[in-house]
Amino acid sequence: MLPISLLPQDNDTIKVLDQRLLPHVTRYETLRTWQDCHKAIADMWVRGAPLIGITAAYGVAFAARDAQGMDAFEENIQTLATARPTAVNLAWAIAQQRAIMKSENPQEAAEALWQNAQLMRDADAEACRMIGVHGLPLIEKIYQEKQETVQILTHCNAGALACIDWGTATSPIYWAHQQGIPVHVWVDETRPRNQGAHLTAWELREANVPHTVITDNAGGHLMQQGKVDIVITGADRVAANGDAANKIGTYLKALAARANDIPFYIALPQSTFDPQIQNGLADIPIEARDAKEVTHIQGWDEKAEKLTQLRLTPEGSTAFNPGFDVTPASLITGYITDQGQCLTQDWPSFSQTHLRTR
Amino acid sequence: MLPISLLPQDNDTIKVLDQRLLPHVTRYETLRTWQDCHKAIADMWVRGAPLIGITAAYGVAFAARDAQGMDAFEENIQTLATARPTAVNLAWAIAQQRAIMKSENPQEAAEALWQNAQLMRDADAEACRMIGVHGLPLIEKIYQEKQETVQILTHCNAGALACIDWGTATSPIYWAHQQGIPVHVWVDETRPRNQGAHLTAWELREANVPHTVITDNAGGHLMQQGKVDIVITGADRVAANGDAANKIGTYLKALAARANDIPFYIALPQSTFDPQIQNGLADIPIEARDAKEVTHIQGWDEKAEKLTQLRLTPEGSTAFNPGFDVTPASLITGYITDQGQCLTQDWPSFSQTHLRTR
Repeated sequence: MLPISLLPQDNDTIKVLDQRLLPHVTRYETLRTWQDCHKAIADMWVRGAPLIGITAAYGVAFAARDAQGMDAFEENIQTLATARPTAVNLAWAIAQQRAIMKSENPQEAAEALWQNAQLMRDADAEACRMIGVHGLPLIEKIYQEKQETVQILTHCNAGALACIDWGTATSPIYWAHQQGIPVHVWVDETRPRNQGAHLTAWELREANVPHTVITDNAGGHLMQQGKVDIVITGADRVAANGDAANKIGTYLKALAARANDIPFYIALPQSTFDPQIQNGLADIPIEARDAKEVTHIQGWDEKAEKLTQLRLTPEGSTAFNPGFDVTPASLITGYITDQGQCLTQDWPSFSQTHLRTR
Repeated sequence: MLPISLLPQDNDTIKVLDQRLLPHVTRYETLRTWQDCHKAIADMWVRGAPLIGITAAYGVAFAARDAQGMDAFEENIQTLATARPTAVNLAWAIAQQRAIMKSENPQEAAEALWQNAQLMRDADAEACRMIGVHGLPLIEKIYQEKQETVQILTHCNAGALACIDWGTATSPIYWAHQQGIPVHVWVDETRPRNQGAHLTAWELREANVPHTVITDNAGGHLMQQGKVDIVITGADRVAANGDAANKIGTYLKALAARANDIPFYIALPQSTFDPQIQNGLADIPIEARDAKEVTHIQGWDEKAEKLTQLRLTPEGSTAFNPGFDVTPASLITGYITDQGQCLTQDWPSFSQTHLRTR
């Protein structure tokens, strides 16, 4: 079964999976107020751009319901918007909600905001579902030619846990699995935060999709050895020229895929397309994250009793932690979107024709 | 100061650094018997092909000194030879020692075996020193052109800790540093065993060489951004055609170096050259190591009191752990050996002319 990352309850609370505890503990927390939503986003109980956006959308509805006047409401959703520094979907979701405010009385708008959050949630699930519909033929074709298990490599977590349902990179995989096509997924552990080992492995296991965790170092060797048929990753931002920013290390896999003639696809909902940026490699800003993500690591202790943090590096050795890299369009075979898929040479016209501009 | 991995004492014991505890604790253990040497190799107090070989050579001397007859001696060194399954230097070192046995009385040979172990140790240190002599001009040239800190990326630990002194990939770096050339080393953490974060960072810190630890995912991005001037790694085996087996992930860095026009060098003592293997990519066997190295990780607990092991992956998700990959000669700029350096197109003639066959 696909895991559920967010579940609305009785028109006035939502339940979210506390992803910090995965893959060791499956615990849902009930969010009742905008402050709860802020905390869940800031402390990374929820993560992944789409899921952050939807959680914030419900947070706006809660903020309206509980507000003492418009000023307090505005102040609170401003605070909510700062829960994560760089998540573009957070600001986008709050702007979407603000756009439907017809009243100067937040409490009067609360019900409409809740309903709109539900619509945004459904739209996200539908976009991810359609990425699967459009990506499935790629996997089907490999299976028809090979008549053996299709070997798919993915990096980071662009899965159901990052979204409402299906995920982006995982959606074609889940579709293929549900159609009975034998698939096996090589899961890059994805240092430093280990979203592959922690989250992708967990959700594939929940969905009974065969998979194997590997270090980020191993993918090139597997491609050399003919053990990968296709690479599918998500993206954080795709530029007008097709350059794609995604989790650090994606670029290395794209290089290896090209060197070994393996198709490399980026799966994205159209909200990830940024037509404002002409040249992704030159102009997509790359966030440098906390060095402690490299110098320390979190895991489950030997007695399986508690999450524990360990130091990996010597005292006095510094670390540098770029969070993302940009894969140039020249290394990308094609794009799988909720509006269809295209090869890289067609991206400029496809994106202009089929994708919304923001 | 360069760290000391092995130190002979008073003609009948050696001290070795317990590398399992690095970078958190610096503890030397005294090895007095062949059994001590076996344990130090098997339990990985010492690691790195050259250091394993030298430790075993002293172990043979201890075995002779303490032997009750030739049969017992032979049996004991057979056991010593199995301390690690795949370390080619272990068998090689024991064969070197056996070759100088002139007596059927092991105790009579003990002194000569000790002296030969000393010679082997000195030869290893000298080979590493000469790799530095021959590699230094590469770094000097970059500095002359750039007149700014030379940025060097390395993978795994091909350092003084893997050898007796200087290391292989690190030797040109230490030479440059000692000559006053400003260098900075990007240290790949090198999952899954983290030899970069644990060992290379530690020895560079001890030697006061400026360095920064990065995830294995980050190197491609740094190269794209112009932040790497040269890549130097060690090798576990280099074939007649120049293909080089080294720690898993080396191949991805070689791809990124090529894509960004950055020189990529392999540093090796001639003992790493294997002329028996014509085609490295086709014929160098790759060891699949214990999946637990991927599913679990060891580090230093928050109170800095003990080494602790944590689980990273979900129960029920398997892992695959290839220990090495092969970088094809076509991606290698050149080789730095104790006998000189050469560009890749010259490797066949250089290696035939200058390197010993085994």
